[in-house]
Amino acid sequence: MTDISPLARPFPALPEIAGVTPRVARAQYKTWDRCDLTYVELAEGTSVAGVFTRNVCCSTEVELGRESAAGGSARALVVNAGNSNAFTGFRGREAVDQIRDQVAAHLGCGASEVFVSSTGVIGVPLPRDKAQAGVAAALSAQPCTWEQAAETIGTTDTFAKGASASAIIGGTRVQLAAIIKGSGMIAPDMATMLGYIFTDAAITPALLQQMLSAANKRSFSCITVDSDTSTSDTVLAFATGKAGNPLLASMDDAGADAFQAALDDICTRLAHLVVRDGEGAQKFIEIEVTGAVSDESARRIGLSIANSPLVKTAIAGEDANWGRVVMAVGKAGEPADRDKLAIRFADKWVAQAGLAVDSYDEAPVAAHLKGQDIRLGVDLGLGDGRATVWTCDLTHGYISINADYRS
Amino acid sequence: MTDISPLARPFPALPEIAGVTPRVARAQYKTWDRCDLTYVELAEGTSVAGVFTRNVCCSTEVELGRESAAGGSARALVVNAGNSNAFTGFRGREAVDQIRDQVAAHLGCGASEVFVSSTGVIGVPLPRDKAQAGVAAALSAQPCTWEQAAETIGTTDTFAKGASASAIIGGTRVQLAAIIKGSGMIAPDMATMLGYIFTDAAITPALLQQMLSAANKRSFSCITVDSDTSTSDTVLAFATGKAGNPLLASMDDAGADAFQAALDDICTRLAHLVVRDGEGAQKFIEIEVTGAVSDESARRIGLSIANSPLVKTAIAGEDANWGRVVMAVGKAGEPADRDKLAIRFADKWVAQAGLAVDSYDEAPVAAHLKGQDIRLGVDLGLGDGRATVWTCDLTHGYISINADYRS
Repeated sequence: MTDISPLARPFPALPEIAGVTPRVARAQYKTWDRCDLTYVELAEGTSVAGVFTRNVCCSTEVELGRESAAGGSARALVVNAGNSNAFTGFRGREAVDQIRDQVAAHLGCGASEVFVSSTGVIGVPLPRDKAQAGVAAALSAQPCTWEQAAETIGTTDTFAKGASASAIIGGTRVQLAAIIKGSGMIAPDMATMLGYIFTDAAITPALLQQMLSAANKRSFSCITVDSDTSTSDTVLAFATGKAGNPLLASMDDAGADAFQAALDDICTRLAHLVVRDGEGAQKFIEIEVTGAVSDESARRIGLSIANSPLVKTAIAGEDANWGRVVMAVGKAGEPADRDKLAIRFADKWVAQAGLAVDSYDEAPVAAHLKGQDIRLGVDLGLGDGRATVWTCDLTHGYISINADYRS
Repeated sequence: MTDISPLARPFPALPEIAGVTPRVARAQYKTWDRCDLTYVELAEGTSVAGVFTRNVCCSTEVELGRESAAGGSARALVVNAGNSNAFTGFRGREAVDQIRDQVAAHLGCGASEVFVSSTGVIGVPLPRDKAQAGVAAALSAQPCTWEQAAETIGTTDTFAKGASASAIIGGTRVQLAAIIKGSGMIAPDMATMLGYIFTDAAITPALLQQMLSAANKRSFSCITVDSDTSTSDTVLAFATGKAGNPLLASMDDAGADAFQAALDDICTRLAHLVVRDGEGAQKFIEIEVTGAVSDESARRIGLSIANSPLVKTAIAGEDANWGRVVMAVGKAGEPADRDKLAIRFADKWVAQAGLAVDSYDEAPVAAHLKGQDIRLGVDLGLGDGRATVWTCDLTHGYISINADYRS
């Protein structure tokens, strides 16, 4: 790992989740001295839901994961770090099949109940011998902590990322614990990164999928680091049912709203952690768009701002260059009226009705921009659509990390 | 100006164009010691055509220019450098009206025959007193060279950019001379930057517009520096008719094809010069996409690659990280089949049919990537659609230039 992000957060205390046992091992996918294979065993009867990258050049892992998630049942998760196994054709497929068969034989379950993710360089088939030895080592390893698992799924991440939440369902408290990795090749409009959410709640696969998709739309689909969309992005939610709550099967069931709120909360915090580890990030940026013609239009405008290299470099330079925000609104391809547009930093309006405010005092804005947490607001003045998106600034660090990642 | 781009080209010898007289002056829009106001007088009877930014937050200059270009007749061009006058509301509009009235009174023409462009920081109204004095100085100045005019329209440009072409129409040789500025906030899907093409050809405004739009589609709309779309982008073509060729009024007229070819050629060379002055650029990148379902689909895929920060930083790092090209193809939102995709650097295929080629030897690819002119090819294997797009790499220089541009 390189230097820890200045925006890092300490790894939180995560609850144990009944029916979930994480283990890690060294497959040595790269020549590094660290664990790089994570194995999570799940109790029989575990429900699963997933959201996956929309990149059409996705990996075998994503293709198989999408198929298996539709089955609704999971017994294990294997995550390989250091090699994404994407764009590796039949050789990549053979490696994933081998891992699934090896774990399925050990657990006595179907291969489709074993979920595999891989992350790292694209285009190099996952070495089958290393995968086999790594999986064997993990199957016999002692259980590990959530923090160890979070460290093991990371690649260019500079800190381990996790979050927890809980909810009351029918008088029973259910727990959620989650880990995530991601730092670059982070773009919206899909589930980004590798994220795993574990809960002891009893919930049907169909409802879990419905809730995860909804939470994703408000969290992972509202962040961006560099506008680039990974070929491997996956977020999976596993529910073991061990908490003993009355089975949730519909949003009308008592406690479903509470569980959705907990899931939203955990997904949003995970999404923020990914942005906080954005490659080269020095500032965390929240962009709130209001007054758009619809929520979706607001989200697109927010992401146009969040993906603008000129906006991101201006904020890196602590420059209140709101003209670049105007530019980014105008290029979004969404309805906007220049002469109704208003822009603020924190709570200080700098432009309204299409021009700079008369009394504009740059001092408080400049002070806000010197901080680590930047808030930018745009009001379109057209309707009730609103969205909040999150990104980081674009710095020399991003260039340094990515100009020689593979070498 | 900062250090000259390593990809710079010397300013070429440009022909004088009968009926076109450029002059420059100091309006002192910023506190700098250089000319920043360009005035080009055009003979009576000059046809005009224009293509403009599609950014919906465009400047007054763009709004008025679009209206005036529809009129088809031009007598003068004024370009202000250092202040884009965009997002300045009624104050910005007043400044442009004042400039048009001042020039129109001098020439005895209509205000709508005076074309005004402004480039520089967004959000600060163009100071009317400086504009008035600058225009007055330019009206009485000695004619200048094309190179002086090209220097004067520049802002973050590191070298003056121009190109020429000629064509034979009905036995008469017509000349074209053009200047352009642009370095950042350069994105496709529209005419980008400020570019001006002057010719002594006799051609109707309607045909000139048709030809310019066609040329734009294959040149300016196929380049990108940073995916950001300026609020002020404008390309104007002026035809004085002084060459004495038979008037061109239709693509069926003799010589129309030759003139279109000359216009295509000059637009493509201007577009390349802008990329060569891309902020922080160290490498010029040509991306050829073939086998797409349509030409437009190929262009979109090419631009998805050209706008990917991860592809651009990899090339900056001279890293043949073709996996990032796969990613960028997959996120383009266009038809693609991972298992038919092939990728090459220069003429060396590195991946075919969805995986790395068996005999892949990285040495010649690595050698190619050490050069300044990089060629990248992608074949989708789906159809006959093709496009070529151009961009530059993403380097520390881009961050340095843009993190403190305004301050």
